Amino acid sequence: MQHFMDPKSVALIGISRKSGPGSFNLMENMSDFGYSGEIYPVNPNAGEILGKKAYPSVTIVKKKIDLAVITSPRNTTLNILQDCVAANIKAAIVVNQGFNDADRRGQQMQQQMVEMAAREGIRILGPNTLGVINSFAGFTTSFMPVTKQRVGVGLICQSGIHFVGPTKFSGMIGKGVDLGNSCDIGFYDALKYFAEDPDIQIIAIHMEGLNQGQDFLPLAARVVKEKPIVVHKSGRSETGAKAAMSHTGSLAGNYKLLQAALKQTGITFLEEGGQMPYAVKTLQNLPPMKGNRVAVITYSGGAGIMISDGLEKHGLRLASLSSEIIDQMAALSPSWMPLSNPLDIWPAVMMHGARKAYSVALKAVLRDPQVDGIICVAIAPLPEFSFLNVSEALNDVVETSPAEKPVIGWTYGPNTMEVQMQFESKNRIMIFPTLELATQALSWLRDRYVIITRDDRGFI
Amino acid sequence: MQHFMDPKSVALIGISRKSGPGSFNLMENMSDFGYSGEIYPVNPNAGEILGKKAYPSVTIVKKKIDLAVITSPRNTTLNILQDCVAANIKAAIVVNQGFNDADRRGQQMQQQMVEMAAREGIRILGPNTLGVINSFAGFTTSFMPVTKQRVGVGLICQSGIHFVGPTKFSGMIGKGVDLGNSCDIGFYDALKYFAEDPDIQIIAIHMEGLNQGQDFLPLAARVVKEKPIVVHKSGRSETGAKAAMSHTGSLAGNYKLLQAALKQTGITFLEEGGQMPYAVKTLQNLPPMKGNRVAVITYSGGAGIMISDGLEKHGLRLASLSSEIIDQMAALSPSWMPLSNPLDIWPAVMMHGARKAYSVALKAVLRDPQVDGIICVAIAPLPEFSFLNVSEALNDVVETSPAEKPVIGWTYGPNTMEVQMQFESKNRIMIFPTLELATQALSWLRDRYVIITRDDRGFI
Repeated sequence: MQHFMDPKSVALIGISRKSGPGSFNLMENMSDFGYSGEIYPVNPNAGEILGKKAYPSVTIVKKKIDLAVITSPRNTTLNILQDCVAANIKAAIVVNQGFNDADRRGQQMQQQMVEMAAREGIRILGPNTLGVINSFAGFTTSFMPVTKQRVGVGLICQSGIHFVGPTKFSGMIGKGVDLGNSCDIGFYDALKYFAEDPDIQIIAIHMEGLNQGQDFLPLAARVVKEKPIVVHKSGRSETGAKAAMSHTGSLAGNYKLLQAALKQTGITFLEEGGQMPYAVKTLQNLPPMKGNRVAVITYSGGAGIMISDGLEKHGLRLASLSSEIIDQMAALSPSWMPLSNPLDIWPAVMMHGARKAYSVALKAVLRDPQVDGIICVAIAPLPEFSFLNVSEALNDVVETSPAEKPVIGWTYGPNTMEVQMQFESKNRIMIFPTLELATQALSWLRDRYVIITRDDRGFI
Repeated sequence: MQHFMDPKSVALIGISRKSGPGSFNLMENMSDFGYSGEIYPVNPNAGEILGKKAYPSVTIVKKKIDLAVITSPRNTTLNILQDCVAANIKAAIVVNQGFNDADRRGQQMQQQMVEMAAREGIRILGPNTLGVINSFAGFTTSFMPVTKQRVGVGLICQSGIHFVGPTKFSGMIGKGVDLGNSCDIGFYDALKYFAEDPDIQIIAIHMEGLNQGQDFLPLAARVVKEKPIVVHKSGRSETGAKAAMSHTGSLAGNYKLLQAALKQTGITFLEEGGQMPYAVKTLQNLPPMKGNRVAVITYSGGAGIMISDGLEKHGLRLASLSSEIIDQMAALSPSWMPLSNPLDIWPAVMMHGARKAYSVALKAVLRDPQVDGIICVAIAPLPEFSFLNVSEALNDVVETSPAEKPVIGWTYGPNTMEVQMQFESKNRIMIFPTLELATQALSWLRDRYVIITRDDRGFI
């Protein structure tokens, strides 16, 4: 995979002479992303592309080429791959559509590609792929604009959609591999690369259909002890499976069986694709949760009720707070105030201010041995009501406490995005847009604790 | 309810002398919100409050007072209500906590309030409430800052959280009633007001526990034919129900039974509170869907698969597109491109540009008699890639088509919020953040069609 992810030299075969907005010029995108290695444009009709000499064929470049990126029409692909073999290139990305995702002729051509990879030892990523993103090396083969983020998240997917809009699908990603139709390079190869990559701490996978499963599953079971792996499998319904077939030619397989096999390895398995960015930021930043007892601190009794529903759904429960904790809060509250969990601190806020009341409450539950994790419900006010914004006060509390219990938050109010960024600035408190996701996040952390502490003999 | 929602004169009893940030001064908030009626501050310890003469008791104001808002400590509340009766005030809001939400003494006092309302004919909203918002009349009793939105959404809730952060819970709201502990004014009263209110087109309800159910349910069954009613019920779990009890003293009741009764009326019932803003904007802006056949137009085969999963889950299905439609798209696509539904138009985009390819596709499926509703998957690019932004092109198409089929969208990419606003600018295309919500939205519109066309004899 090193040749794909971090090549010192690249041939761009079939690259267009057009550049600028709307041309999707891969060479331009690659340069904009910061690639500083050698680029050899190959196009029989062009003398020069973006100021670089173009070669009529890759066979006459006569330089060491780590990776070929092929963007020419499908009918030319097999001959070009043969040229790559002749030029001693060991890795090629076939970008174009029109193979297993298309008609019978396309399927035949993809089959020939598979055979060529096996026969000649050239590794092929794709076809029907945007290729790779490597923000650490400043390298991408995507012809669509992508964002550079030096974060420890590795993405494996089968559709370019995950490269174009990653924040929607995975949160920020540091490196990515789009397997496309997966004629050769598959899930095992990509997972192995990320497993051994010190830049990557967590692996996010969007799966249409698993390939290389026999190697992938036991590897995943080993990797997951060190690095969380989060999987969303699409194509679970009958119609979805049919669509997956026509998209990348994936056999989506039996969803229930695959789900069971993936979960068995210790993978965090998501029922909905939209959960991925939240699962990633949860597992990346927060400690595993040692038990299922959750303390809720809230400005609003209404929110406390909604959370209670979510906890029960995810196998968690409201902690019975220690009497010492209750006494501490009672000292700040009116005498008639019934205090339990959820801990409604609004009367204390009215009497002592939001920062003081909230800090005392959070410090208390962090110390309470009967609490495993904490949900904070807070207001995201406009700047003129910043005295209600407890993001700084709560970060001060968690920074002076051991990072043993996950603290997550849910904010409501007119200034959600900005206050979320303030809460998350230290990567110690994570904010979720719905209470459903907040409770779901704690259940991922609970499962994570079970996975990393289980004493199994490995998965075969 | 008119006295609560649009009073010509208000007595503010127990109002604080403090003002400015952190004081939560109701009188200040009321003025900032634009209230132009008479205000009579009542506070035995203050000569003047915010430049207005303060009265030691409401009984000596000697003017016609439509509404009293009582914010003094709980022990004083019953005497003050008695004063209100003496002053011939017909409507009072009791803001403070400390009644059924608190201890035995609080429960006794709330019971005395109930009896006073029955005996003296004074109507009471609360206790434990922020009261009302009426953006059309520029009136609110909330001591927390709230936003003025002249939109046709009426909100009924039992927690102030829905006033403070409505965009999270309900989307924009035009009017709102916080029932709080509901000692007197309840769900029936509030629904009746919104049912008859020409400013209100849709009613959003966050329910902890239903009260006035015998009157509420048959009224809801009648109202729902004209105005959609969307309900989220919290406190569904055992722990949630217990929390509801301690929050507003609500008996959350049997969730399944209540859910069945609410659904029977034709109410749109939400399984998750976070769905409310999406349900509201869907039912407010889009036409009911006449059948369950959905066309999907997408830049990305991967997204098509995810949508297929969502459709099946919600009882919808992929439409079989007419051959005429397929032929039109085939004319824009490479010959090897297999075209069906989901309609993957990326190759056509590469050949003819995003706006042309997408407009042709949307126009075609809008005309196709085998299609009842449409999901558009599109990129939300940064301004420098605005040639991929089809928001204007698609709005042109829907504006020149009859508004018979709902068109909804899901966008991915770096510029989600701005492109969403562009798509939604004509209120004809609504955007959803996840595919799960996009398919859910169509199922709400499908159910809506069934409700408004069903021939029932009314609900008793």
